[in-house]
Amino acid sequence: MAAAAPPPPPSPAPEAPNDVPQGSTPRGHPLFARIRLAHPTDVPHIHKLIHQMAVFERLSDQCIATEASLSSTLFTSPPFQSFTIFVLEVSHTPFVEHLQYNNPAYPPITKVVNLDLPINDPDRDLFRSNGGVLGGDACVAGFVLFFPNYSTFLAKPGFYIEDLFVRECYRRKGLGKMLLSAVAKQAVKMGYGRVEWVVLDWNVNAIRFYEEMGAKILQEWRICRLTGDALNAYVNAQL
Amino acid sequence: MAAAAPPPPPSPAPEAPNDVPQGSTPRGHPLFARIRLAHPTDVPHIHKLIHQMAVFERLSDQCIATEASLSSTLFTSPPFQSFTIFVLEVSHTPFVEHLQYNNPAYPPITKVVNLDLPINDPDRDLFRSNGGVLGGDACVAGFVLFFPNYSTFLAKPGFYIEDLFVRECYRRKGLGKMLLSAVAKQAVKMGYGRVEWVVLDWNVNAIRFYEEMGAKILQEWRICRLTGDALNAYVNAQL
Repeated sequence: MAAAAPPPPPSPAPEAPNDVPQGSTPRGHPLFARIRLAHPTDVPHIHKLIHQMAVFERLSDQCIATEASLSSTLFTSPPFQSFTIFVLEVSHTPFVEHLQYNNPAYPPITKVVNLDLPINDPDRDLFRSNGGVLGGDACVAGFVLFFPNYSTFLAKPGFYIEDLFVRECYRRKGLGKMLLSAVAKQAVKMGYGRVEWVVLDWNVNAIRFYEEMGAKILQEWRICRLTGDALNAYVNAQL
Repeated sequence: MAAAAPPPPPSPAPEAPNDVPQGSTPRGHPLFARIRLAHPTDVPHIHKLIHQMAVFERLSDQCIATEASLSSTLFTSPPFQSFTIFVLEVSHTPFVEHLQYNNPAYPPITKVVNLDLPINDPDRDLFRSNGGVLGGDACVAGFVLFFPNYSTFLAKPGFYIEDLFVRECYRRKGLGKMLLSAVAKQAVKMGYGRVEWVVLDWNVNAIRFYEEMGAKILQEWRICRLTGDALNAYVNAQL
């Protein structure tokens, strides 16, 4: 479980990024990655990511989210108390600090991924982020949306991850692990007992990834869902 | 789906309880049922119910909740905004209104279940409730704990039901349906898109009950859980 390994000491090489592990050789194409709390101005990017995710999950027909409906239902409470989004940004140049992102509830986390080859991102312009204006060529590469849940057995809150998504061209570079680890770390920091999410049983790559992250897959439980007309029928239900 | 049927007109018989359906013959043993928001003073009963549920689910070894740990993690925000509990009380005599339970966020709901035979409740004294002092012989018969979740596909909140439990001697009398319907009705009232929960795949009685309530069982999804040492390892994770 790489994310639980002890942190590497800082690299002594002044020209290398701070978190290149000692002993490794920095390769030719550093990719700077940043996780920060989402901001209402991120909604257009989040909206596009949700629709890309729906396509990947073969569930596009169920996805009716619009920018307006997302804007009116998210960002309604302080971070971590209810629905919370971390945005993952990437850039070919280092991120600069900016007050807009210095939320005391969650200072942004950055790391450097050293790649052999540059990434060809066909949607770079679509996902160009505010950070780009300040920090070079940043764009949004993924997100995670989560919120508190509660375990009566533990008598403790936890976090439930509704979505974790990294755009196709940025996968298999440790960025999904970075997002999931950020939620897990925040859960531990808050004294929470669990982090939970769901996975489609045919998504064997995701299942392997989650097991490597330390998760157990609960085989016996099934999700029950009451929605649409079946839910709306309860409006006049005589209890 | 009985809970979605049109409400029966009030009974004209003055001596009959108000919500005995017209045309039915009140039988010999009315059981008065009330759903209300839980109060911190309900924690000892909720704690016992959680442990009874753990035994039923064959998961007692995972249940470490104490009254103290429940008290310190519940009732931390207004009803419906975070972790919310409805308590189900039953009584052989009608409930009396009391200011303590007249929470404007959720006025209590009552109904009458007409039984052929009285219920022998061996744990009645253990579960005697505050309502009993005011309204006769009331005791706590069950509870439901739920909290908001969020669907990015719908761009809407919903409710996730963590626990729904009715004590053994009060089952098969429509009280579980009453609890689940109360959550569904509240979700519709708030404009929410879904109510979700999980069920063990071997619990065929529960699955049949949920399907009769209008729920779909999602067969493809599996729950992933990061907890205990595997979660705590992230405390020092270098992202």
